[in-house]
Amino acid sequence: MIRVAICAPARSITPEDAARVTDLATAVQGVSLNFHPQCFQNEGHFAGSDAQRLAAFLECANDPAFGAVWFARGGYGSNRIVEDALPQLGEAANAQAYLGYSDTGYLLAGLYRARIGAPVHAPMPGDIRRAGGEAAVLRTLHWLGGDRSGEEPGPGAHPAVAFNLTTLAMLCGTPLMPDLTGLVVQVEEVSEHLYSVDRLFFHVTAHLRDVAGLRLGRLGDVPENDVPFGRDEEQIARHWCARSGIPYLGRADIGHDIDNKIVPFGLESRRARD
Amino acid sequence: MIRVAICAPARSITPEDAARVTDLATAVQGVSLNFHPQCFQNEGHFAGSDAQRLAAFLECANDPAFGAVWFARGGYGSNRIVEDALPQLGEAANAQAYLGYSDTGYLLAGLYRARIGAPVHAPMPGDIRRAGGEAAVLRTLHWLGGDRSGEEPGPGAHPAVAFNLTTLAMLCGTPLMPDLTGLVVQVEEVSEHLYSVDRLFFHVTAHLRDVAGLRLGRLGDVPENDVPFGRDEEQIARHWCARSGIPYLGRADIGHDIDNKIVPFGLESRRARD
Repeated sequence: MIRVAICAPARSITPEDAARVTDLATAVQGVSLNFHPQCFQNEGHFAGSDAQRLAAFLECANDPAFGAVWFARGGYGSNRIVEDALPQLGEAANAQAYLGYSDTGYLLAGLYRARIGAPVHAPMPGDIRRAGGEAAVLRTLHWLGGDRSGEEPGPGAHPAVAFNLTTLAMLCGTPLMPDLTGLVVQVEEVSEHLYSVDRLFFHVTAHLRDVAGLRLGRLGDVPENDVPFGRDEEQIARHWCARSGIPYLGRADIGHDIDNKIVPFGLESRRARD
Repeated sequence: MIRVAICAPARSITPEDAARVTDLATAVQGVSLNFHPQCFQNEGHFAGSDAQRLAAFLECANDPAFGAVWFARGGYGSNRIVEDALPQLGEAANAQAYLGYSDTGYLLAGLYRARIGAPVHAPMPGDIRRAGGEAAVLRTLHWLGGDRSGEEPGPGAHPAVAFNLTTLAMLCGTPLMPDLTGLVVQVEEVSEHLYSVDRLFFHVTAHLRDVAGLRLGRLGDVPENDVPFGRDEEQIARHWCARSGIPYLGRADIGHDIDNKIVPFGLESRRARD
């Protein structure tokens, strides 16, 4: 039995969201969910103040009763607490898996850089709000229960990381950015114009050094601009990979959608966890 | 008489825009405008292909007949040509002022880093499209004619640079990013949610080292989000400045609007030009 602590380092979810996810979890053997009450707090944009979100994350991560910390939802805010959190993580925190994506990538990155626990790009409880979102949530629940079939395999299962493109761009050059040498970097984006995606690729490819390659996830809900950009997302990725000498390795099965697959960060040896 | 070459490294303007700006310039002593035909080209999002925009910029910058190169309009695209442009700039390019803002900040940054010419944050011909835009365009025209009254004075006229916040964020850590040690950095933004502004400040303040301070220009057209962010733009700037040890020096009179003032980059000694 793996006990999973759920907190919200960015935006909140509702008790109804939590109830629906808890219902789903009853059908999955060997997984028990524990929603921290901070998940339901609100302060402006965030699920409570920075101090509240930080405290809840530390409670979950430092509790040896848990085997995994699952982030409830993205939406912006994790970056405001990661630097303060890392030095306060103890031994129990190192034994946990950390699951989330989108804005919670700031935490996955900081943890990976600090070599604390096992960061995993994975659907979150908040995905229950999507039409058909049960499939996404169940993918993570089954993974937590030991079923690895929801993983994004990648070419030759090369060690990988996965990030929202904006999140990765904002991480570059900060004290949270891990060394990605030798890894395949998967990126996905949502609700950004293609010119913005092009600009983010300019930035990210200037920072990525000695990665094994880049794979392009899905771009969801791309807004219409007043003029068509004139090239598609794959041409954008190929352009900037070519300029910066990064191998472009094709598409990745991740995105802000119900088909979003699971990507454990880095080497297999660092992520054995059942 | 200063002869001014105008090219469009990002998006295009129309011949009508150019005619209106040319009309305004007739009232300004000592300034003659020369619109490069590339200003009116279109390819997808851009004012012509990367190769066309690069060639036009090099023609303007490398022509000793000109005393200044004025960028026609922002909107995205300059970052795609700067790295290729810099090594192709000759002696004549070093004697020029370069004027623009917003997306053309990639050029101003790259030129400043390479110590080529005198980069100047200033209204562009494309500002003629704004209601009351004549005032913005005339501000730059008068500056070109030798009248410095349109400059953003700053506290004690400390040497400064000015950037669009997104542009500066995308520059950080790239081969175009200049050393800003000892300078006051002014930033402005347009059409970004407050959570996005907060995220950009997280990134930018992690990169700015040993700057003299940061001043906050205007945030134009901030979109409504589904929840209010919970703090205003100045609280955001103060928060990230405090966290990163950067002195916050108050507001700056720049923005994507007709009141946008002129900021010559860096030291007075590097920008004597009449």
